[in-house]
Amino acid sequence: MKEKVTIIIFSNDLDKVLAAFNIAIGSVSMNMDVTMFFTFWGLNVIRKEKSIKKPLNWMKRMLGLLNRGGADRLKLSKFNMLGIGTSMMKKLMKKSNMPSIKELISLAKESGVKIIACNTTMEIMGISKQDLISEVDSIAGVATYLATAKESKINLFI
Amino acid sequence: MKEKVTIIIFSNDLDKVLAAFNIAIGSVSMNMDVTMFFTFWGLNVIRKEKSIKKPLNWMKRMLGLLNRGGADRLKLSKFNMLGIGTSMMKKLMKKSNMPSIKELISLAKESGVKIIACNTTMEIMGISKQDLISEVDSIAGVATYLATAKESKINLFI
Amino acid sequence: MKEKVTIIIFSNDLDKVLAAFNIAIGSVSMNMDVTMFFTFWGLNVIRKEKSIKKPLNWMKRMLGLLNRGGADRLKLSKFNMLGIGTSMMKKLMKKSNMPSIKELISLAKESGVKIIACNTTMEIMGISKQDLISEVDSIAGVATYLATAKESKINLFI
Repeated sequence: MKEKVTIIIFSNDLDKVLAAFNIAIGSVSMNMDVTMFFTFWGLNVIRKEKSIKKPLNWMKRMLGLLNRGGADRLKLSKFNMLGIGTSMMKKLMKKSNMPSIKELISLAKESGVKIIACNTTMEIMGISKQDLISEVDSIAGVATYLATAKESKINLFI
Repeated sequence: MKEKVTIIIFSNDLDKVLAAFNIAIGSVSMNMDVTMFFTFWGLNVIRKEKSIKKPLNWMKRMLGLLNRGGADRLKLSKFNMLGIGTSMMKKLMKKSNMPSIKELISLAKESGVKIIACNTTMEIMGISKQDLISEVDSIAGVATYLATAKESKINLFI
Repeated sequence: MKEKVTIIIFSNDLDKVLAAFNIAIGSVSMNMDVTMFFTFWGLNVIRKEKSIKKPLNWMKRMLGLLNRGGADRLKLSKFNMLGIGTSMMKKLMKKSNMPSIKELISLAKESGVKIIACNTTMEIMGISKQDLISEVDSIAGVATYLATAKESKINLFI
């Protein structure tokens, strides 16, 4: 039985998501089983850039205009400065040979990290399965999260 | 012996507090023992809407004017937009039959979640026992937190 | 074998860092082994106030101008209000005989808390060993973090 790591990704801040993937990929490379549970703003990380058009009430449509998906759209939690800070940080990451979030998602997926999307938030926000990237393993709720988390050596809320 | 879950609620962002209660209530429904430890801004979640008048120095009074208690006053961490975003999110939650924070507190309490208020923050901020809602089980410090947390299968800082 | 506590300090918000040190120092006083792993913005907490001058590219230099180190520079995550809120909170902390962050670092160090700086972030941000305060025990990466975290009773991401 491998040791387990379970991470809730609540945030879609570039910096925090970066930390989450570094821990996740580090854990699999140390032969641990990793589950990443994406909820609330974190769902944006595993959403396609373009949402599928569907009949939604005006509130979900407005929320969709503000709260856009796509791993390339993540911003720094500090010093975003209309995108300049975020863009500089991305360049600094590249200079240090650090992969982008998109590359980290692929890397995580390839190395066996399990990617779960939170169904409760999806319903509230009007996000459907087709809006999610193909790397998502499953859509599940808090019971699934808890079943894995209580068997995990490391639990984090990011 | 039931398995334990201990959650520090440091934040009073509507979205984060929502996540905390969903995990807490999910955990008790899976037959786990849950302790929620409210500290710093999180204390606002378990404060009455109206503070008891008491002799406080001017700094604590000013802080009290800015940092108001009450579960109905929580705001989204993103897209609050002078309250419009928060109000929309609350309506979307209602449409998805998701309870409000006030209802979640009652639900948590009824199902046996233990609600603890952090005494250190209470002192710094000039919050007294009478300012807290009746659902609070006890007022305690970091030692009480640690005693439960180290016996817990899941520990989160939200 | 002592029980272990491992805390990632990702944030440099005064309030969150305060919580992290209270938990850390509380844990050692309950005879537990504590590791604090400072990463991303959290690195600022364990940086000297004045950076060592060194040849950096313009992006790292610009980042250095915005993102300044030093435990005295931490701001509240809410109600900073151009420093007024933060300064008031510091005074309220003092009135409650709560130590400052600088004093908490010394206290933590004296009581045996292990202070680790994240090498990945240091490289991205152009922070070198000489920029860090003397209380830092070592510079390490995610593998070191995981090795300690998976043996810990309490893991937190702050």
